[in-house]
Formats: sequence, structure tokens, C-alpha cells
Amino acid sequence: MAGDGATQVEHMSEEVKGESQDNTWGWLESTAHAADFCPTEDHAVVPHDTPMKEGYLLAAHCMIYALDDSVVFNLYCRRAAVLMHMRFDGYLGFPGGLVDTGEEIIPALNRELHEEMNLDLTRFQVKHEDHVISHENAKNRVICHFYALCVSLAEFEEIERAALASKEHGHEVLGHIRVPLYVMGDGYRGFPTFLDNNFCGNARSQLLTSLKQRNILPESIINAALAATKKYVPASS
Amino acid sequence: MAGDGATQVEHMSEEVKGESQDNTWGWLESTAHAADFCPTEDHAVVPHDTPMKEGYLLAAHCMIYALDDSVVFNLYCRRAAVLMHMRFDGYLGFPGGLVDTGEEIIPALNRELHEEMNLDLTRFQVKHEDHVISHENAKNRVICHFYALCVSLAEFEEIERAALASKEHGHEVLGHIRVPLYVMGDGYRGFPTFLDNNFCGNARSQLLTSLKQRNILPESIINAALAATKKYVPASS
Repeated sequence: MAGDGATQVEHMSEEVKGESQDNTWGWLESTAHAADFCPTEDHAVVPHDTPMKEGYLLAAHCMIYALDDSVVFNLYCRRAAVLMHMRFDGYLGFPGGLVDTGEEIIPALNRELHEEMNLDLTRFQVKHEDHVISHENAKNRVICHFYALCVSLAEFEEIERAALASKEHGHEVLGHIRVPLYVMGDGYRGFPTFLDNNFCGNARSQLLTSLKQRNILPESIINAALAATKKYVPASS
Repeated sequence: MAGDGATQVEHMSEEVKGESQDNTWGWLESTAHAADFCPTEDHAVVPHDTPMKEGYLLAAHCMIYALDDSVVFNLYCRRAAVLMHMRFDGYLGFPGGLVDTGEEIIPALNRELHEEMNLDLTRFQVKHEDHVISHENAKNRVICHFYALCVSLAEFEEIERAALASKEHGHEVLGHIRVPLYVMGDGYRGFPTFLDNNFCGNARSQLLTSLKQRNILPESIINAALAATKKYVPASS
């Protein structure tokens, strides 16, 4: 089992165990597996209204973005400002989280967006029609619904600023970042380098699907950027 | 040569070349190699007053941090809030940058901190005594000076908020993040996962050296966390 913290702690080196306050999973254990990094092939696309299964967790996340065709460094078209964050566990991810028992998906997601980003729900709310894709991960026993919320660039900047005052800033969320969507002069730096970072769950695949579905990046560019990942050898002097 | 943009663009796939505004290095080319990821062994420790060499670039970066022994999730000691950022090129890095010709190191670093973070230089300034370590990278022809600036937690939070209004926010800097310094229940999530992300230049090594030198993390924990990187296999269901 992914959440078998007791066994895992036994295998943890004495140095790591001995120094911090506590290196167990504690109360995080029962849900920790939902955020394991999972390769794309572990996620089957399922309908939005897939019924819940016994022993499964339900998760909902959202990509907040603003179209932006301005040019950075006089060279690269930005295409969009896309918001992701550094999670408490060192992975990059999207705002959102687990749906509580008895909670509806959309209210749960908006609740999480308020908790994690201080999103002003009187002005911005994810709706059913913002749905992008849903996945089932049988290995990790989780169903993940994904949404994309398009705002103006001015609204995006406002959301970014407000996020620093969220309840979870410095706790679950260690900072918000924008995704570089351009490829730089060596064919690797920029978007491919970004994709070579660590992502939780299937966040990388959710990002790529949303960029495609919302016509932010053509599929050919996405595939070329993916092909460039993990292949860069710095030029010798 | 690392900056041989013309040759690199020739090898770039047609998809990537054809779609963006411009996928050359442009004016970034001459300095791009200074930010190449470099393994620790490519960096020789040198004295702070190492004279400049012909054809070399000079860089100075800084880790802004605040000690913080509070506990997150009722489990993990935070130890410190340590500031890094997502760079325009998809790498994680520290604020700072290249020293211009004729410029002194410390004023150059403070200038960069103001440009990239909107740091209020009337209140916060890096000084000579904040120096941590300097490296020479012969392959990339760059000398890198590294500093660490300790502030209070309240000041840290203020600096974090001000950074969103910097001139470089959304350009060179895509967002500021804090570093998780704890190791979670599987011995991998948290600090080791964070260290498995992509870092520019020798930023990862500068981070580890500073954590050690400023007694934020004991060397044994740092070594154990490093040993855990790239070794995690998610538990099967």
C-alpha cells in the first residue's frame, strides 16, 4: 500500500529520522498516495460523472490562466500566464485538493482555491463548464477531475498577489509560479526544462492536456517540447 | 562553445522553430552558458577576492532566509523559510545575476535584488560579511559568488510580498517559492523531492552549502536527503 508509513519509516535512514521533530506521515498518511507522481499511462481518461468507487479518493484541481501574446526578452511569445505552485512536498502542482466525504466536486474545488490561494469567490468561481479532463488511477485508487479557469491578465496578476495572503501560504503551498511556455535557443531551456521538474500525481499531463484543449500551445509544439526533455547535454566549452 | 546559438538552432526541430515568435538565443546568447546546470564537481571553490580572468563572466547570487522553528502539519519542523525562484528558463535559482563590466560585486548583487525582487535597499542590503562561498567553473568560464542574507520571519514575508511588484516579475522571475527542508514519511517527499527538481548553474550546491554553513540543517541530514534523491520508487497498491 502506498500509505504504509510504518514500513517506510523503518527503512528511513537514522539520520533523517533522528533530527526533525517527527518524520512519520502522521495524519497525512491516509491520503498521501493520492499525490504520488504517476506516469501518464497510469491514468485512464474517464467521464466527468464517473461514479465513486469503494476505497477511492476524489480529487479536483484547476489551472488558472490568462492569454498573453506579449513577447519576453524581445524574443519569445509568452502565449499565456499559467499558474502552478510549489507544494509542501517539493513537487510542482495545481491548486485544488481532495473532495471531502459528502461534498460536491465543484464546491470542494472552489473551497480549496479559497484556502490555498485566497481566491475571491464572489468574483471568481470554477464552474462545471470549465471542466477539461478526468482520470482514474486504479493503482493509487483516486479519481482526478481537472478544470481550467480563464481570466484576464489584470485579474491573473490580482489573483497572484492575493494568493500570498492565503491561509495555506507557507504551509501546503510554498509559492506560486508561472509556467514558461516558450522554447529557448538551445531547444531545451524554457518549456522542456520546466517539464523536467518534479510534478505530483498527473499534474504534468493535466497541464499539457489543458494547453492543447484551450488552444494555448499547438500539439506539435507540445510534442516537440516533450521530446526535448531529459535529452539535453550542455555544450562543452 | 556553450553560446553557439546558430548551430543549436539548426538542430532544433522544425515544429519548435516554426511556431514561436523567435526561438534563437538573440541577445541572451552571449551569457546563456553562465546559467547552464553544472554538476558540483565542475565548480572549484575559490577565494572571494579571486581576480577576474579574460573571457570570464562574474555572477553573484543570494539566499534570503529567516529562521523558523515552527512545525508544519503538526509534524515537520520548518527550520527556516528559504527563498528561491522559478527562472524564465524553467530552472529553479536564487536572485542575483551577472556583474556588469566595471561594476563591483556587492553593488551589482544589490542592484539585481532590487530589479528581481523589488528589495527595499534602504532597509535590506547584502554586505561583504554575508559571503558564503565562491566557485570557479572553468568549463562555463564563470566565477560565482554566493551570499546569504538572514532576516526576521516578518521581514521575509514582507520581502516575499514586495517581490511581486518587481520589474522582473513575469519576465526573468516567474515566481518566488520557499524550500521545504523537512523529510516526509516515505523518506523522499519534501526536501529530497525538492532537490530532484532542475536547478540552474550550481544553485543546488549553493543551497546545500549555505544550509550547512548557517547551521540551518546538520550535514548528516543534508547527506541523507541527497542520498534519497532519484531513488524513490512509489509503493505499489
